[in-house]
Amino acid sequence: MKKYSDLYQIISQEIKLTQYAETPTELYEPISYMMSLGGKRLRPVLVLMACQMFDADVSKALNAAHAIEVFHNFTLVHDDIMDNAPLRRGQQTVYTKWNMPIAILSGDLMMIKATQLLCKTESNQLKSLLEIFNKAAIEVCEGQQIDMNFETRNDVSHDEYINMIGLKTSVLLAASLQIGAKIGGASDEDAQYLYDFGKNMGIAFQIQDDILDSFGEGDKVGKKIGGDIVSNKKTLLLIELLEACNKDDKKFVTENLLFESDIDKKINGMLHLYKKYQVKEFAENMKNKYMNLAFASLEVVNTINEAKLILKHTAQELMTRMS
Amino acid sequence: MKKYSDLYQIISQEIKLTQYAETPTELYEPISYMMSLGGKRLRPVLVLMACQMFDADVSKALNAAHAIEVFHNFTLVHDDIMDNAPLRRGQQTVYTKWNMPIAILSGDLMMIKATQLLCKTESNQLKSLLEIFNKAAIEVCEGQQIDMNFETRNDVSHDEYINMIGLKTSVLLAASLQIGAKIGGASDEDAQYLYDFGKNMGIAFQIQDDILDSFGEGDKVGKKIGGDIVSNKKTLLLIELLEACNKDDKKFVTENLLFESDIDKKINGMLHLYKKYQVKEFAENMKNKYMNLAFASLEVVNTINEAKLILKHTAQELMTRMS
Repeated sequence: MKKYSDLYQIISQEIKLTQYAETPTELYEPISYMMSLGGKRLRPVLVLMACQMFDADVSKALNAAHAIEVFHNFTLVHDDIMDNAPLRRGQQTVYTKWNMPIAILSGDLMMIKATQLLCKTESNQLKSLLEIFNKAAIEVCEGQQIDMNFETRNDVSHDEYINMIGLKTSVLLAASLQIGAKIGGASDEDAQYLYDFGKNMGIAFQIQDDILDSFGEGDKVGKKIGGDIVSNKKTLLLIELLEACNKDDKKFVTENLLFESDIDKKINGMLHLYKKYQVKEFAENMKNKYMNLAFASLEVVNTINEAKLILKHTAQELMTRMS
Repeated sequence: MKKYSDLYQIISQEIKLTQYAETPTELYEPISYMMSLGGKRLRPVLVLMACQMFDADVSKALNAAHAIEVFHNFTLVHDDIMDNAPLRRGQQTVYTKWNMPIAILSGDLMMIKATQLLCKTESNQLKSLLEIFNKAAIEVCEGQQIDMNFETRNDVSHDEYINMIGLKTSVLLAASLQIGAKIGGASDEDAQYLYDFGKNMGIAFQIQDDILDSFGEGDKVGKKIGGDIVSNKKTLLLIELLEACNKDDKKFVTENLLFESDIDKKINGMLHLYKKYQVKEFAENMKNKYMNLAFASLEVVNTINEAKLILKHTAQELMTRMS
């Protein structure tokens, strides 16, 4: 059975060999550029991995895998405009390398290309694959909007946060697995269990991401520690802090720390409170809860153990590599 | 058989009764707003009209008709950002009424919703409907990019222009007819003839639009005369002028008139040259050529004459109402 690295090779090759139309160049160059920036290719690998749990011939899921990766990159192109982000994977974002209209339009085109790729799937279940895909795509947009709404709020609850990251991050991982499983011939039930696995695992990944941004070792994580703190991002840590702390500390956070312009002072001040209220431990518990939920769903999927183990190890490795 | 006004009622009612999700409101309110702004609903009516040429039960094409209208409005939401347009159908654009991130994201969501609606079509030809739709959607994006590229060019050829409006404007009209016809049970050949009818008719509509912007009666057209001239839009008139005029006049246009800040002087100067070089007559001839091509395609469609006449009259009325 193929492991992450094998499946990564397959999808990377597919993406690399894809030729887009030549004109208008302003529209197609940004797409080739964005798709060449690389990354873990986690979502398409999950499509292939879920397919091979039920059918060794992963080639039949290749178009769907590619579709999901193009869709994911479309969301990044548009998110980068909305977030005014200058860099993506260490390179200029489409928005800064070209301009805003081109980033909007090439993103739009990627979204359509994603559907077009999915439609190439040889399956008598195309309608149901599209339903899963469209539902997830809509939820990703909803998640992005809810996340933007959080920026101006200091009263976000744990539930609201979990709901948001579920939509913004997890449903696409979940749908990748569900689509791959269905292409492989899984029963609706098994495909749904894999969806649940992906949904809960995605939430755990995001919580881990939140933790590492404040408590990781900078070099290992590959980015500077405290970025979320500096940008006042409503992570699970900040949300838990605002919920758990006493009145004075809350006042200090919402009236001083969030507006502190001295970056080191801001990060240290926030980390001090995170430790005081043990928010890291809270987040670790929450993460473990969702990981356990994920593994429980995987357990009941009706396939050979080896296939489950590959998926489980992938999840664990990702979690470890990030820690 | 149902006429434009009957079919308009059916699709308007369908759009009016559609309830979007309630949250996040920032994402769904702009969609409801945009869909409520009205308009001729030409594309969805064409879907229904093409369906009834082969099957009296137009209800089976209603989701597809709705899908095309949502897609069309998605392109308007994003185009308005790219064009910095403050108004759309006399109302604020989504971009100005809310903001840019919301206009990007709600537009994205409309694009996905369009595919979702199309997928609701009960048809054993869903894959082929999606192929027609995705191809047209991609071409609309290409047309928009090529149109933006024209802004900085003074050497656009007639062929390039016809290609651009074909993509930006016509293919969606054409695809509307092809999709409706296929849902109604037309042969691939007949559906293709209707596509060709729509493609050529769309080009004729756009040329008529270009003519009216410079030579229409302001009150009838419903907008101020000369808008295209003021914004240096590369219409067929301007393209033909730059192609047909002598060296001195070309120099005057490209070095003076295009930069003239006195609006009346600019419009009058350009109209004077349009008359001198008979560009209106040139454009009328071109328009008639495409209208005739369109009607020739319609002629050979294998259906009863009454059905063809309804479509023909619709095209003629639209052309007259605009004149």
